[in-house]
Amino acid sequence: MRYFIEFSYNGTNYHGWQKQPNANTVQEELEKCMSVLLQEEIELMGAGRTDSGVHATQMFAHLDTNTVLNTEKMVKKLNSFLPNDIMVFSVFPVKEDTHARFTAIARTYKYYVSPEKNIFNPNTYLFFKKLNVDKMNEACKYLMGEQDFTSFSKLHTDTFTNNCDITKAIWEQEGENFVFTISANRFLRNMVRSVVGTLLDVGYGKIEVEEIKTIIDKKDRCSAGTSVPAKALFLTQVKYPNNI
Amino acid sequence: MRYFIEFSYNGTNYHGWQKQPNANTVQEELEKCMSVLLQEEIELMGAGRTDSGVHATQMFAHLDTNTVLNTEKMVKKLNSFLPNDIMVFSVFPVKEDTHARFTAIARTYKYYVSPEKNIFNPNTYLFFKKLNVDKMNEACKYLMGEQDFTSFSKLHTDTFTNNCDITKAIWEQEGENFVFTISANRFLRNMVRSVVGTLLDVGYGKIEVEEIKTIIDKKDRCSAGTSVPAKALFLTQVKYPNNI
Repeated sequence: MRYFIEFSYNGTNYHGWQKQPNANTVQEELEKCMSVLLQEEIELMGAGRTDSGVHATQMFAHLDTNTVLNTEKMVKKLNSFLPNDIMVFSVFPVKEDTHARFTAIARTYKYYVSPEKNIFNPNTYLFFKKLNVDKMNEACKYLMGEQDFTSFSKLHTDTFTNNCDITKAIWEQEGENFVFTISANRFLRNMVRSVVGTLLDVGYGKIEVEEIKTIIDKKDRCSAGTSVPAKALFLTQVKYPNNI
Repeated sequence: MRYFIEFSYNGTNYHGWQKQPNANTVQEELEKCMSVLLQEEIELMGAGRTDSGVHATQMFAHLDTNTVLNTEKMVKKLNSFLPNDIMVFSVFPVKEDTHARFTAIARTYKYYVSPEKNIFNPNTYLFFKKLNVDKMNEACKYLMGEQDFTSFSKLHTDTFTNNCDITKAIWEQEGENFVFTISANRFLRNMVRSVVGTLLDVGYGKIEVEEIKTIIDKKDRCSAGTSVPAKALFLTQVKYPNNI
């Protein structure tokens, strides 16, 4: 039987989702906990990796087991055993060939920036100069659609293609803060954070709106702005087809 | 010249407000920062102490200096030099005899409890059983007015009197969470946390509503419920007369 697990985590204390030697990861915590509860070695396949320090308000993974799970009980047990920065929403059966990563059709990320420090919310990035958000939103138009995003990708990654189809990219005000929302079928490593860094350069007036197009066309990582910190980045939605 | 400083802090990483040897405190951080900025030894007198781990969304302290302060500039400078968990709202001159602690006429605290963990907000206390909030609010009526609160005070404190005049004590729902708000002219050490612990016992059905009165009358610390953790307690307001 294949099951999906839907969960969220505060990434502050983790080296991202994906298991790796000598580093604390969300995958490892969840696998350890599920293996103890099910009394068998459980391996999880996540919907994607998130970088060190990045958070998720919605994330999925799949697992295979011969045990028929009491899903409601499993959620309660997981939440009482997991550390306080990981929370499971649901566990549910899916078809044998539904894959947490490859069946997903869209991902959404949000990035939070603030004009002043919020002592109870460290997960936001401080900007110090006035931001022209209208210009940042104009620049977003150049991001839309299917394009090669090599300029916003981490160097030396082994992905088969650097094409991504961006369906949404917008900055919105929330109180004194601004939130960037970006949706695509897939993202490259480090992509959202370097897109945000480059859009902030537009907002500061450091580069012109149209330069975004030039940067994309160059297909050169050195042309884009610097990456903003991970702590203000949230994976907020992973979308699957209806019948999984 | 005497000045007031109005500020807030996330208490997670501090051993409370008050300076003490070998422990990181909010007072020490602020004094260090102000002394460097003013190039003279600055001593602060806080509106009260908060225990280790307790937060403040509004707190005041006073300081004396011969320098005439550019208050607006001072706020900006302080916020750029202070750690990210302390934030200064304002600095303003007061009369020579206005005292941050003794001139204050009322303090308000809030305590947050939640039915489930919130991975992005660790500053709330988890309750696991159903709470009867109506009963908790009935019990609050017994707290009102001027009374001796020895039963809710830390043992062996050196206060002159254990009388406090409580003017507000109420539980309110905020989404899935409950917030307890309590105002009084003054509070004893540990008082809010042991009041909350005792009211939760009423909410769980462990003790009857009327037992609150019996506990107060006993004037015995051992009669009240256990103290709840500091991390969910916030000093939210310190009130002064109009002409300070």
